[in-house]
Amino acid sequence: MFQDFTATTRPDQGPPRLARLRETLTQEGLDGFIVPRADAHQGEYVAAHDERLAWLTGFTGSAGFAAILADKAGVFVDGRYREQVKLQVADCFTPLDWPDVTLGDWLLGEITGSARIGFDPWLHTVGQIESLEKTLRDSGIALVGSANMVDRIWVDQPDPPTAPATAQPLEFAGEPHSEKRARLAAQLADAGQACTLLTQPDSIAWLLNIRGQDIPRNPIAHGFALLHSDSSVDLFMDPVKLEALEDHLGDAVRVHAPDVLRPTLRSLDGPVRLDKVTTPVLLAETLVEAGITLQWGSDLCALPKARKNATEIAGTTEAHLRDGAAMCDFLAWFEDAAETGITEIDVVRKLEESRRATNALLDISFDTIAGTGPHGAVIHYRVTEETNRALAKGDLLVLDSGGQYRDGTTDITRTLPIGTPGDAEREAFTRVLKGMIGISRLRFPRGLAGQNLDAIGRIPLWEAGLDFDHGVGHGVGVYLCVHEGPQRFSRLSDVPLEPGMILSNEPGYYRPGAFGIRIENLVVVEEAPALPGGDAHRKMLQLRTLTYCPIDRRLIDPGMLSSVEVKWLDSYHETCRRVLRGRVASSTEMWLDRATAPL
Amino acid sequence: MFQDFTATTRPDQGPPRLARLRETLTQEGLDGFIVPRADAHQGEYVAAHDERLAWLTGFTGSAGFAAILADKAGVFVDGRYREQVKLQVADCFTPLDWPDVTLGDWLLGEITGSARIGFDPWLHTVGQIESLEKTLRDSGIALVGSANMVDRIWVDQPDPPTAPATAQPLEFAGEPHSEKRARLAAQLADAGQACTLLTQPDSIAWLLNIRGQDIPRNPIAHGFALLHSDSSVDLFMDPVKLEALEDHLGDAVRVHAPDVLRPTLRSLDGPVRLDKVTTPVLLAETLVEAGITLQWGSDLCALPKARKNATEIAGTTEAHLRDGAAMCDFLAWFEDAAETGITEIDVVRKLEESRRATNALLDISFDTIAGTGPHGAVIHYRVTEETNRALAKGDLLVLDSGGQYRDGTTDITRTLPIGTPGDAEREAFTRVLKGMIGISRLRFPRGLAGQNLDAIGRIPLWEAGLDFDHGVGHGVGVYLCVHEGPQRFSRLSDVPLEPGMILSNEPGYYRPGAFGIRIENLVVVEEAPALPGGDAHRKMLQLRTLTYCPIDRRLIDPGMLSSVEVKWLDSYHETCRRVLRGRVASSTEMWLDRATAPL
Repeated sequence: MFQDFTATTRPDQGPPRLARLRETLTQEGLDGFIVPRADAHQGEYVAAHDERLAWLTGFTGSAGFAAILADKAGVFVDGRYREQVKLQVADCFTPLDWPDVTLGDWLLGEITGSARIGFDPWLHTVGQIESLEKTLRDSGIALVGSANMVDRIWVDQPDPPTAPATAQPLEFAGEPHSEKRARLAAQLADAGQACTLLTQPDSIAWLLNIRGQDIPRNPIAHGFALLHSDSSVDLFMDPVKLEALEDHLGDAVRVHAPDVLRPTLRSLDGPVRLDKVTTPVLLAETLVEAGITLQWGSDLCALPKARKNATEIAGTTEAHLRDGAAMCDFLAWFEDAAETGITEIDVVRKLEESRRATNALLDISFDTIAGTGPHGAVIHYRVTEETNRALAKGDLLVLDSGGQYRDGTTDITRTLPIGTPGDAEREAFTRVLKGMIGISRLRFPRGLAGQNLDAIGRIPLWEAGLDFDHGVGHGVGVYLCVHEGPQRFSRLSDVPLEPGMILSNEPGYYRPGAFGIRIENLVVVEEAPALPGGDAHRKMLQLRTLTYCPIDRRLIDPGMLSSVEVKWLDSYHETCRRVLRGRVASSTEMWLDRATAPL
Repeated sequence: MFQDFTATTRPDQGPPRLARLRETLTQEGLDGFIVPRADAHQGEYVAAHDERLAWLTGFTGSAGFAAILADKAGVFVDGRYREQVKLQVADCFTPLDWPDVTLGDWLLGEITGSARIGFDPWLHTVGQIESLEKTLRDSGIALVGSANMVDRIWVDQPDPPTAPATAQPLEFAGEPHSEKRARLAAQLADAGQACTLLTQPDSIAWLLNIRGQDIPRNPIAHGFALLHSDSSVDLFMDPVKLEALEDHLGDAVRVHAPDVLRPTLRSLDGPVRLDKVTTPVLLAETLVEAGITLQWGSDLCALPKARKNATEIAGTTEAHLRDGAAMCDFLAWFEDAAETGITEIDVVRKLEESRRATNALLDISFDTIAGTGPHGAVIHYRVTEETNRALAKGDLLVLDSGGQYRDGTTDITRTLPIGTPGDAEREAFTRVLKGMIGISRLRFPRGLAGQNLDAIGRIPLWEAGLDFDHGVGHGVGVYLCVHEGPQRFSRLSDVPLEPGMILSNEPGYYRPGAFGIRIENLVVVEEAPALPGGDAHRKMLQLRTLTYCPIDRRLIDPGMLSSVEVKWLDSYHETCRRVLRGRVASSTEMWLDRATAPL
C-alpha cells in the first residue's frame, strides 16, 4: 500500500520545538526565522529530511510557510488549507491567510524598530527574496541568510534521500538524452550563454532520461545540473543514486557529489542562464560573488518537457487505458459496496488494490482524495484514521486519484453518488459536466493560453451564480510530476498551448459543509485537422481526451444538456466501452456496458 | 451630411513631396525622418493640420507611419490596411506589414554604417522612443528629435483647429468637474505626487465636463492639462476655444495658451505622474531636463472615465433608444430599396438622414462602414466615389455606424442580405450570432478581464475552423470617443471589467474577396443580482445590452441555435419591439413587428 492514513503530526509537538527554536535564534543573534514548506527544489512533495514546517508546527499541507518571531509565530497557508491548519497547529502558532496577508506586510506590522530575520538561502528563490526585500526596504528589518535553524535543533532529522535512480528507457522517453542535450545546448549557444543551472528535479529527470525515488509520488531524484553550450552536463547528485547508470549517462554527463556544486559555480565562465522563480538565492549569490554574469530566463527544459513527443504520447495513452480499466474494476465493485457502510479509507484501499492488480503500478501519482459528504468540499482532502467517514446515503463521493506507470502518469476524478442524489447535487454536477465537455470539445487557434480558455469550463456554473476556486486544469508529466508547468488552464497562465502538452480538464463545484463535485479527464493538445469550409490559413489546435472511464449517469440531468453535449457524452462512453472492454475484469463487463449506455 | 465620399488623396501627390522632403533632410543634416499618422494626442482621428502622413504619402488609414530614407520610403500599416495602402501610395513608397516588420528592424536592415534619423518629439510617446532606441542600441543609428520636416515643406498646411468648446451639462455628465478633480487629486496626494500631466483630449474632456469640435467624429478639444494634488487644473488650450466657458470652468481651472505648457512644466515641483504610453517624449524630456522627478502611471482619468456613472448610463440608454429607432426607420426603407440597384453611398446617405431626423445628431461617431459583397470583408471599409458598389442579389451588406448625441455615443453593426442569402453566409452568420449571444448572456465573477472572456464570442466559429482578426469588443465613451480604453474584450486586455464600463460586443467573420459579417451591440457592465441557489459570497457581473435594433432573421439558421439562444433572441426582439414601437416612424411599425417576430 503506497498511501497511509496516519496523522503524521500532532498539535502538541509544536510548543516545545518552537521554544527550542527561539532559544537558538537568540544565541545566533536573530530576531526571527522563516521556515518554508519547500525544499531547495521548490516541489510540492518533499523528503522526510525536508519536512521542517510539519516537524515544527504540525501543519502538513503541500504549501505554506511559518515566520517565527520572539513573541509570535505566524503560519501562512492558502485557501485550500484554512481549515486544516487550525486543526493541526497549537495555540502558540497563529494561522494567517496567505496571500491576503503577505509575509512582508505581516513583518512590517509585527516588528517595531529594527530586526534581523534569518532564512535558509537554499530554500528560498531569488524571486521570493527580491520581492520580500523590496517590501522591507527602509524598514529597519534586515533579511539574513544563515544556516537552517530548524535543522540545528532537529536532533533526529532523517538524512536526505539516497534511493537509486533508474534510466527511463528510450522506448518510453522517445529521445536519447544526447539529442535533448544537443538541442537545448544549441539554444544556449544561440543566446551566447555558456551554460544554464537546472534546479528542478523533473527538468533534470526529463533531460537525462532518468527517474528517481527520493520523494513519494513524484519519480524524481534530488540534484542540480549544469547544462553547457557544448551539450555536456555536470550533474550534482549523490553518486550512490547513480551507481547503475554509468553507461546510461555516458561520458558527456559528469557526476559530482552535491557539495561540489558551489565550487563548480565559482569556476564557471558566464553568462549563466538562471530561472529567478526556482533558483535558490544562495546559488545566484555564489555566482554573483564570483563575478560571473547572470542572465535570467525560464527553465530551459520546461517547454520542451511539456511538449511531449510521439513516444511519450503513445506511452501515456497506454497508461491511461490500463488505468481506466483499473478504475472500472473499482467502480464495478463500488456500485455494490457503496451502500454497505464502507468508509473513505476502504475506498482508497480498494482503488489502490485495483491499480496494483495491473502489475504495472510504480506509485500512486498523489495521495488519493476520497471525500464524502462535506469532505468532498475540501479540495485537497486527505483521509486519515481520525477523519475517516462512512459513506452515507444521499452523499456524494469525490474521488481524485492517479497512478505512476513506467509509460505514463494518470490523474482522474470521478464524483459518485451513494444512493439517490439530491436535486441540487444533480444540477451542480450537470453544470460541472457541461463545463468539462466545453473544454473537451474545444477547437481553438494557435497562440492562445490558459488565461484565454479557462472561462469555458466555468460558464455553465456562472449562469447559476456558482464558481470554483481552482484553475480548470494543470499540466501533467509522463511518468513524472502530476503537477507540471508551465502549461495550465488558469486565468493566471499566459503560456500558449502547444501540440503535445498534457493538461487536466477538471472543473468542480464545492459547497462548504455540504458536498463537493469534480470531474477530471486528462487531455493532450494536438493539431486540429482542417475542416471543409474552414479558413485554410488558420492553424488550429484541439484537445484529445486521454482518460477513459465512464462518468456517472445517475448524477446527470439530461434535460440540462444540449444535443451537442449529449452527443459528446454518448460518444465518449461508447469509446470507453470499446477501448476498455477487453481490458477490464470479466466481472466488470456487465457494469461497463450499463455505465456506458447512451443517455 | 457629415460623411463625404471623395477620395481625399491621390497617389501622384506623393513623389514631388517626397523629393522636397529629402532635400530638406539633406539641408538639415538628417539621413531620414519618421512621419507618423498620430498627432500629439495619439488619437485615431486627427485634424487637417495633422494629416501629415496622408499629405506626404497618400495613405489615409487611421493608423500607420512612414520612415523616409535617402533611397527608400517605407509605409508601415497593420492588417486592416494592407490592400488599401497599395492603392493609395505611389511606387516611390514601399508598403510594409507592421507589426511583422518593425520600424527598428527595418532601419537596421536598410542602413549600413551610421545615420541620423529625425523625428518630431511631439508626435512620439516616451514608450515608442524607448522601445525604438533599445532596438537601435549600438547600431550607429541615432534618433534625433527635431522640428517637423513635413511641416517645413507643407506650404498650405491648415492651421490647428480652434473650434469653440462647449460645457457638457451636469444633467448628462452626472458629476461636477469640481468633484471629479477632487477625487482624482486625492489619489495624487495619497501617492505623494504633486500633479499629473494629461495629454489625452478625452481625459481632459471628461475631467472638466467639456466637449470640443477640433476633429471629426470625436467631440474633443485638443489641449494638455496639469491636474494638481490641490485639485486645481492648468489647462493649456487655445483660449479662443474656451471663451464661452469661463463660468463653467471657474477659478480652479486656469487657462493658458498652449505655448505656456513647456515653461510651466519646467517650473513644477515633482513628482509628476506621466503615462508612458501616451505622453509625447518632448514633454517628458522637458521635465527631466528641469530636474523634476517623474513617476510612471496610467492616465489617471482613464478608469474613472470608463466607469460610467448612473447619469451617463441613463443618458446613453436614451441615446441608444433614439438611435435604435433611427436604425429601424432606415431598415424599413432598406427592406424595399435593397433590390432596386442602390449603392453603398446611397445606404450611407439614407442612414445618416435617418439619424439626422432625430434632430439630436451632433455628428456620426465614425465614418459609416457600408461594405457589400467583397467590401464587407474589409473590416474598416470606407466607401468613396471610386469604390462605390451597387448592392447585388445574393450579397451581404455589413453596415457599421453610430451617432454622437449630447447624451451618448452609439456604435451598431447589422449585416443585411440582399435577396436570398447563400448557405455558407447563413451558417457563418448564425455562428457569429451564437458568439454574440454568448457574450450577451455572460454572467461572470468580478476580477476578470477581456483576455479571459474574448474566446466566448468565438467558440461557435472555432468549431467550424473559422475565426476573425479583431477583438470581440472595444470600450465606448458617453458623448466621447467611440473607441475608448482601457476596457475591451480582447485577448490583449488585462484590465478587469467593472460596473459602468461600456463595451461593444461585435464578433464577425470575413471571407476575403467574398463576403463579410459582423453583428454589434453595445453592452454596459453591471452588478448581477444574486440568484436563488447561487453562492452568496460570489459577487458577479453581467452585461446589459444598450443597443436595440432587430437582427436580420433571414440570415439565421434556427436549427443551429440552442433553445437558450433562441430564447435570448426572441426575448431581445420582443424588447426591441416594446421599447422602439413608440419611437419609430408610423410607416416603420409594421416592419418592426415583422422584424421582431419570434423565430
